[in-house]
This record gives sequence, C-alpha cells and structure tokens, in this order.
Amino acid sequence: MEKLDILCVGTDARMTYTAKELTQYGSVYTYGTTDDGTLPHMLSSPGEMPVKADMLVLGIIRGDGLDVGMFRNTPINCMDLSPCLKRGAVVIGGKLNIKIIEYFSSLGFEVRDYLKREELVLRNTVPTAEGALEIALRELAVTVRDSRCLILGSGRVAGACAELFSAVGAHTDICARDLSALTAFAIKGHGVFMLTELGEHIGSYDLVINTVPAMVLRRDHLCRCSKKCLIIDLASAPGGTDKQAAKDLGIRCIHALGLPGRCAPVTAGKIIADTAIQILKERRNTDVT
Amino acid sequence: MEKLDILCVGTDARMTYTAKELTQYGSVYTYGTTDDGTLPHMLSSPGEMPVKADMLVLGIIRGDGLDVGMFRNTPINCMDLSPCLKRGAVVIGGKLNIKIIEYFSSLGFEVRDYLKREELVLRNTVPTAEGALEIALRELAVTVRDSRCLILGSGRVAGACAELFSAVGAHTDICARDLSALTAFAIKGHGVFMLTELGEHIGSYDLVINTVPAMVLRRDHLCRCSKKCLIIDLASAPGGTDKQAAKDLGIRCIHALGLPGRCAPVTAGKIIADTAIQILKERRNTDVT
Amino acid sequence: MEKLDILCVGTDARMTYTAKELTQYGSVYTYGTTDDGTLPHMLSSPGEMPVKADMLVLGIIRGDGLDVGMFRNTPINCMDLSPCLKRGAVVIGGKLNIKIIEYFSSLGFEVRDYLKREELVLRNTVPTAEGALEIALRELAVTVRDSRCLILGSGRVAGACAELFSAVGAHTDICARDLSALTAFAIKGHGVFMLTELGEHIGSYDLVINTVPAMVLRRDHLCRCSKKCLIIDLASAPGGTDKQAAKDLGIRCIHALGLPGRCAPVTAGKIIADTAIQILKERRNTDVT
Amino acid sequence: MEKLDILCVGTDARMTYTAKELTQYGSVYTYGTTDDGTLPHMLSSPGEMPVKADMLVLGIIRGDGLDVGMFRNTPINCMDLSPCLKRGAVVIGGKLNIKIIEYFSSLGFEVRDYLKREELVLRNTVPTAEGALEIALRELAVTVRDSRCLILGSGRVAGACAELFSAVGAHTDICARDLSALTAFAIKGHGVFMLTELGEHIGSYDLVINTVPAMVLRRDHLCRCSKKCLIIDLASAPGGTDKQAAKDLGIRCIHALGLPGRCAPVTAGKIIADTAIQILKERRNTDVT
Repeated sequence: MEKLDILCVGTDARMTYTAKELTQYGSVYTYGTTDDGTLPHMLSSPGEMPVKADMLVLGIIRGDGLDVGMFRNTPINCMDLSPCLKRGAVVIGGKLNIKIIEYFSSLGFEVRDYLKREELVLRNTVPTAEGALEIALRELAVTVRDSRCLILGSGRVAGACAELFSAVGAHTDICARDLSALTAFAIKGHGVFMLTELGEHIGSYDLVINTVPAMVLRRDHLCRCSKKCLIIDLASAPGGTDKQAAKDLGIRCIHALGLPGRCAPVTAGKIIADTAIQILKERRNTDVT
Repeated sequence: MEKLDILCVGTDARMTYTAKELTQYGSVYTYGTTDDGTLPHMLSSPGEMPVKADMLVLGIIRGDGLDVGMFRNTPINCMDLSPCLKRGAVVIGGKLNIKIIEYFSSLGFEVRDYLKREELVLRNTVPTAEGALEIALRELAVTVRDSRCLILGSGRVAGACAELFSAVGAHTDICARDLSALTAFAIKGHGVFMLTELGEHIGSYDLVINTVPAMVLRRDHLCRCSKKCLIIDLASAPGGTDKQAAKDLGIRCIHALGLPGRCAPVTAGKIIADTAIQILKERRNTDVT
Repeated sequence: MEKLDILCVGTDARMTYTAKELTQYGSVYTYGTTDDGTLPHMLSSPGEMPVKADMLVLGIIRGDGLDVGMFRNTPINCMDLSPCLKRGAVVIGGKLNIKIIEYFSSLGFEVRDYLKREELVLRNTVPTAEGALEIALRELAVTVRDSRCLILGSGRVAGACAELFSAVGAHTDICARDLSALTAFAIKGHGVFMLTELGEHIGSYDLVINTVPAMVLRRDHLCRCSKKCLIIDLASAPGGTDKQAAKDLGIRCIHALGLPGRCAPVTAGKIIADTAIQILKERRNTDVT
Repeated sequence: MEKLDILCVGTDARMTYTAKELTQYGSVYTYGTTDDGTLPHMLSSPGEMPVKADMLVLGIIRGDGLDVGMFRNTPINCMDLSPCLKRGAVVIGGKLNIKIIEYFSSLGFEVRDYLKREELVLRNTVPTAEGALEIALRELAVTVRDSRCLILGSGRVAGACAELFSAVGAHTDICARDLSALTAFAIKGHGVFMLTELGEHIGSYDLVINTVPAMVLRRDHLCRCSKKCLIIDLASAPGGTDKQAAKDLGIRCIHALGLPGRCAPVTAGKIIADTAIQILKERRNTDVT
C-alpha cells in the first residue's frame, strides 16, 4: 500500500493509540486528541492540515448532530473537517449518526462505521472479558478459580467471558435462550441451562455476568441470589439487571461499560486502526475489480 | 472426628473466615477477630471462654515476643490464652517466633506453624497468582492476552503465575537459575532462558513478574526495560527489584505482598482452616499408631 | 415424561448404544441391531413387537429407496416397520431420503432427520476432532505438541479441531475464506490467513487437516508441502484433496469419514438418543401450545 | 561452539533422528543405525571413521557386557569403538552398564548416561503422555472428553498425563501416596485421593493410567473396576498391574513401554541430541572454570 495521509479526530481515549498505530501506514495528523507526549502532527485547527487526507478517522459519536467531539471547549463540526479530505476519501467512525453519514456521503466520501465490522466487535470481546475478569478478581472475596460463575447470554461477549473464566479455573455455566447455542457451550465443557430455568439455579453462583441487553435479572431472580453474589452487567445501557431490586436486596451489581477503551486503550486503539486499514484495503480491492 | 472446641485469636483479615470455616468441625470461639456480623461466640476476654479448647488458631505473628495480636488497643498475650486450652491441645499459627513456640511447648502443647505446611504454601499460590493477574489487568494499557510476560524464578509461585498468565493468553516466558526447572517449564510451552541472560532479553517484555527473594532486577536490567513495562514484585520484603533505579528510570514497579489475604480472604481463611484440621488429623493418626 | 415404547432399527454401529441409552426413557425394542450381549428386547421380526411404538429410531440411510438396513441378509423395509407404530408416532433417522420421508409422512407420522439438528452436528464435532487427533498421534513421527498444524475451513469441525489441537500444544493455524470467521479464530490465539494465500504458507506445516468439502488441496498446493507432512481430510466424500496428486508426490493423505461412530460409538449413540428425546420433548411442548 | 566430529552408534529407533539432528553441530558418522535414505556418513565398520570423534553417542544399552548394539548380525563392541575417539572425548548413552562405564572411563573418556538427565526425562514425558492418549483415543468406546480418568502416581509422567488428559477435557483425578503432591494436583483442578482409598473409588472410572512402578493395581482393586474400564500401565516392566487378575476379570490392560521412541521417534531423537549437546556445553564451561 502506498503511504497514506490520515486525519484522526476526537477525544475518545483510544484515538491517541489509533493514531500512533496508523503512523506505520503514512503521515498521521490529529486534532482534538489527547496528547501523551509522543503524538506527531497535532493540529490546533483543521485549517493547519498541510495535505488532504485519504482517510478521516473519528471516535465514537455521542450526539445526533454533525459534531464529532470537542476541542478546547469548542465542538468539532464535520463541516470543518470535510475540506481536509482528498476527493474519494474514506470517513470511518463509531456509532455514526444518520446526519454525519448523509453529510459526508453527499460530498462523495465513503462512510463506514467500524462498530458494524464483525472483526472489530469480535476483537473487542477480548478486552471486554478481561475487564470483567479484573472486576471479579478485585471484588470477590474468594478466588475466581473454583468459584461458581454464571454467564447470561450466548453471543460473542458471552463466549469470550466463558472462555476466559474457564481458563482461570472458574466453574462457568451458561444460561441462554437458544438450545443450539447452549449445545456449543456444552461441548466445550460448560454447564448449560435455558433462561426459563434461571430462577431455579441462580442461587448457587458466586458471580453472575450478564451480556443480554434486556431485563433478564429481575427482582424475583435477585431474591434467590446468595448475598455474597457479585453481578457484573456488561449489557449496553440500561443493562439487563433490575438495579433498584439489587440495591434493595444488598446484592452488589457493577454495570461495566466501554471496557475495551478503559481497560486496554492501546489494544483497543490498535483494533480500530487495524479495522480502518482493512476497510481501506477491501475498498481498493473492490476498485480494482 | 468428634466435635472440637476451637479458639481463634487475632486480627489477621483471614481469621474471620478461618473461624467460620471451622464451625463445621465444632464450636468456635473468637477473640480479637474482626466481626462481619456473622461470627458466633465472640469473646470480650479469654476469661469468657466457657470450655477448654482442643485447638488454638493464631494469625500471622508480627513481633518477636509473646504477643499474638491486638484487641481494643491492648496486646493479646500468650499467657492469657494458655489457660483456655485443654491438656494436650494443639497451637497453630503463622510465622510463630521462637518465644511463642517455647512458651506453649513448655506447657505441653503441640505447636505447629501452618506457613511451613507444603499444602498451605501450594494452595496460597492460587490467590497470589490471581492477585498478580488483577494488578496486570488493571495497570497494563494492552490486553494481557497477547502481551509478553516474563516470570523470574522457578518455584511454586512462579509456576502458578506461569500457568495462570498462559491460561489467559499471555506469551509467558520463564527466567531462572536452574536448567531442570526451566525444562519443566519449556515442556509446558513456555519460552525459557537462564538468569545470566536476563539483560539480553528483558527489553522485549510488557510485564515482568518477580518471585525471587534476592536482588535480581538490578539497575542495569531496568535500564533495558521498555518504558511501558510493568514490574510486579511478589518476593517477600524487601523484594527483588532495585526500586530506586526503577523510580529514577520511570519504570512502574508494584511490590505486592500478602496477596492471598488481601485478594481472596475467604479462600485464604479456608486454606488455613483446612490446614489446621489436617494437622489435627495427622496428629491423631500418629497418636493411634 | 411418561414411559415410552421405542423401536430402534438398523445396523449402524451406534444403534446398539442409542438403544441402550434410550432404555432410561421406557421400553426399547431393537431389530437388526448388533447385539453386544446386553441389549434387551431384540426382535427376530417386526411382527414380534408386543406394543405399538411412540418412536421409531433409524440409523443412517445409505440408499434411496424404502430399505433402512439389513437383517440376516434381508433388507429391512419401511413397510414392515410402519405397522409397529402408534398413531402420531415420530420417525427419526439420519440422511433420510425423500421416499422414506414421504412414506411415513403420508401415514401421518412425523419424520425428522437428526443429522439436520444443530445440537447433534455440534456434539459430533467432539468425536470427529478426537478421531483426527488419534490419527495425528499415530501417524506423526514428531509429538503433536509443538508440531505445526494447519486447519482448512472455519466451520464447526474446524473449530473443534482448532480447539483440541491447540489444547494439546500444537501450533494451530487456520486458513479459510471468511475474514470474520478468521478473526474469531485469531482472538483465540490461532494464526490465520486467507485461502488465497494457502500456497505461500502450506510448506511450513507438519499436519494439514481439511474440513472444506470442495477441492481445496490441489496439486499446486501439495507440491509445496513438506514430504513429511500428513494430510487428514475430514470433508465428506469425495473430500477436498487431490488424492492422485498426493499419491504422485508421496504425501500421506488419510481420508477419515464417519469418525464419531468409529472412534466413540458409545458417545455417538448417546448423542443420537439425546437428540431423539429432545425432538420428542419439543414436539410435545408444541402440542401443548 | 566449534564444529564437532560425532559418532552415533546403535540400532535404537531414535538414533537415526538423533544423528540427523546433530548434523547442525558438525560432521556426524553413523554405524549400525537404521538408514532412512537421508543419513550422511554411514560407516560399514568403525575402521572407516576418517577422523577421531569428539563425542560417541550410544543408544539404550540392553545387556550387561561391552556390546552396545548389533550390526548385520554381529555385536558392536566398545573395544571397536574406542579407537575412533579423540583424547578427552565424551561417551554418551542410555542405561549404560557398569562395564561400559568402567571401560571408557579407564581410557580417560568422560562417560554420561542421558537417562539420568532431568531435562531428558522431563521432555520424554511429553511423547509418553501422547502415546497414552493415542491408546485411550483408540481403545475407548466413549470420547476421552467427558470420560472419567484416574492417574496413579504423582511423578513426572503422572503430571504430564494429568495435564494432557485434562487439556482434552477428561475429568482427571489423581491417586497417590503423598499429600503435598496431591495438593499440587488439586490446585490445578484435579480431584485427588490417597492410594489407601483406591479401592473405594476405582469403580467409577472409564480409564486408569498407572505410572507407579510397584504392584498398585491388585486383584482386589480390579474386582471393583467397571467391565468397560481400560487400564494403561506406563510403569517400567513388570508394571504395576496384576495382569493375571485383569485377564481373569476381563479387564483390558495395555502395558505400554518405550512410548517416546515408538510414538514420536523424531522428537525423541531430537531430545537425545539436545541433551548430548547440553552435556558437552556444561563440560566445556566446567573446563574453562
């Protein structure tokens, strides 16, 4: 691949590391990104950009307008960034809203959301599971080894947690809705049961990890938990636990979000960089064909 | 085994859980032990002891005299405890000093130090390794999976760390003095090298865990470490790292002591209780023979 | 579940064990099934069946007519079996052909193919991977530990082999067509590359396991294999290896089919029995609803 | 290390691979060794040796005299070999008898037995455990995964088997004499019990692997085994199983000896070569000091 000019914008904790990782592919310029003293080419304004970029990399978008982040208390707006881009450039970001997608698309740029890339989502399950393990190691008064751990859900994060917690010696059971998915866990040695049976079994666990983005840990389940049980809820807000019930019952519940960026920002930044480059490669292959 | 009367004394964080664990073997009385609201038979003074105990369980002894802990700002002295013991009782504690050993022995009690029991030391390696993993997960900006980890030493703690860090996907190499020990690690898939070669290799690791209770991580080694390298020193005080050099060089070094009691007090308390009971059983077997 | 009457028919090696496993659910009758001396209720002809069955379990069907197996050199025909079935009974078999399906359906029986059940296919990957490991252990002149192993494909069998060969310490890489699938393997620590790059890499492996049912190991790939390389082809006939080329080049290639029944008939029989019961349970739940 | 001249002698299956592995360290001559078509410098008689050797490598010695192997139906005698050696050369072999040791020592050569080297014994446990696994995969009618496996003994081979059988998903328990050794297995997740309790427990296993070189599997134990139980006896002759009792009771017992050379001759040959070179290196370090 020829050398690229890349503009990285945003205050996402990972962006610093995404930018650094991308320097191996060309010249990287950053705007609004936290400096750890080693970032090259930091811009004070988009106007300082000395070349036009092949790729614009944005962090996770929080709002629903054209602002993509903040810099010195001022919003960073897409309209300030588009002049920095080469014709045919690619715009890459996370949770891109419809306005941003339409804005850049209307100018002829290709727009891609890295959170919709299977390989990024998969790779992020590793720091997510590690974040959950860190919490368990810190909060449990027993060793994780030989503890009884229940994972709710059978998706990618559930799979990563099941593998990691088993690897460290926890007895790790899976509770989910889908029989086929449960069988896949069973043949790896996990105990499994259907979500409908949660109430019967929940009382025997030291640790419950929820990955299901729906209200699955209801008051009637929490009533049956051991008082020493720890709940780690990894489901995106508002999570899958009746938090008020947990509070009333004195059950510890930690709702942990954004673990990749918080627990392993370097790895998380590298995952975004790798995905950005992969998107670019696939696009060029398509162009050629 | 017939029901025992047991007296647990001391402020060690684990003692609460040791005492609770022991309740399955008989009546347990505690003195000077932190109450978590569930402890039975707490004494305000040894004189309240309603029966004579078959076994006295002490925490880790800190000083070199006959005091074995504190209660309400007053030292707890062996001489207050001995009247509570049945003839032929066993006294069990950790790091028992020579005065305590001689005191109880002279009264005809059998005295045993649980820290000298192989099975306790072995079982404690599990919470120790978990404590080290918790630190690594918290402090490293990369995932532990795929990180490069070096363990110094080839003893029991080194073995537990090697197993645990490998299990979570770190590339885990071992550096030690003894070729046979290194071979045992090599056949488990670890990279290995001799301590004399530490300087050549140390530069390539994200994480170095020391278990050797001697100055092995000298300034000349630390000079070659990556700036991002994290050192976790598990060796008993003063540890095996030149801390001043680490500070001068901006290398993070965490000296982590007493991990079992701090990270997994329930498990650590159970390990002591199991060992106490095992000591008692062996003694009775011997008596019979 | 009330006690069932079950008729098991066929010479499939697993049927003996399927029948035995099913005895816990009721009375099991067998016809045309290999006796290991412990089978109850063996019939000399379907006419001996003393009751009508709730379920008919057939082995894997080989032909395309109404014959489902052989007994004493005489074909066993569906028309002999249907009179043994209760009204509303379920007929379960493997690779059921269209004539058999239509025959039993037309009589009002429910017909189900267990080879189309995800949980059976998944559970069968375990004995399949074990069969592949047995071959590798037997045929390789090096230990499997530390050997270099390549798996072609990213499906369920590939996943089971990747997990098992890694577990025993082989360096296990995956080669497949799909980037997402490869990423899922990569985060478990496997090396991965695209099928288009097979030629570049194949030369460095001691063992290649194919799971892709298409001609993927062509002469031009085999030319680049080490002479000591062993190929285990698990893809259903005709397999995915150019066998003539392998022969010409002196590359050992073992085409291993039907491993579950051959390597672990008891487990394989139990998997069929469990699936049969599960089919029955789901059907009753549906009936109720 | 400067280039060596090495003479490899003997018909041990591994010698061919030992010789080949050693070619990276210098010129290797072989005598009486099985040719696989790729061996360089095969001698028809020791007299053909064109240089004097720095090292003589012998296979496993079977008798108690000065013969070290056979070539074309003629014994190979030490007296024919000693003239091929340089002054101060090293003689390395397995199970060297006292006559051979004294013969070469008296001529001023250093004599070393590689079977007494800890690193060789440890590394050989890997192909031994793999050989046991191959037998289990072949002979058991259930999958090894989820099977119940008992290992007798707590030494190096027991450890390697425990690790390997657990890795493939067997429930692997350990039965031995020593409490500390059992604890080391227990903290790795194995079930453990004392040898004195063998009779109580043996009935529940699918597979029993013995590593203890003493009669531990007596008739009274075998009486309690399941009829389907498989016994793999890895203890050196005569093994630790009452074979007559096993036969009488219809319990399958496979006494497997010399697994490294039979199952993984290339790896086993490399282990000997590596050990030979290591012996040489240590000797030179000593010379220098």
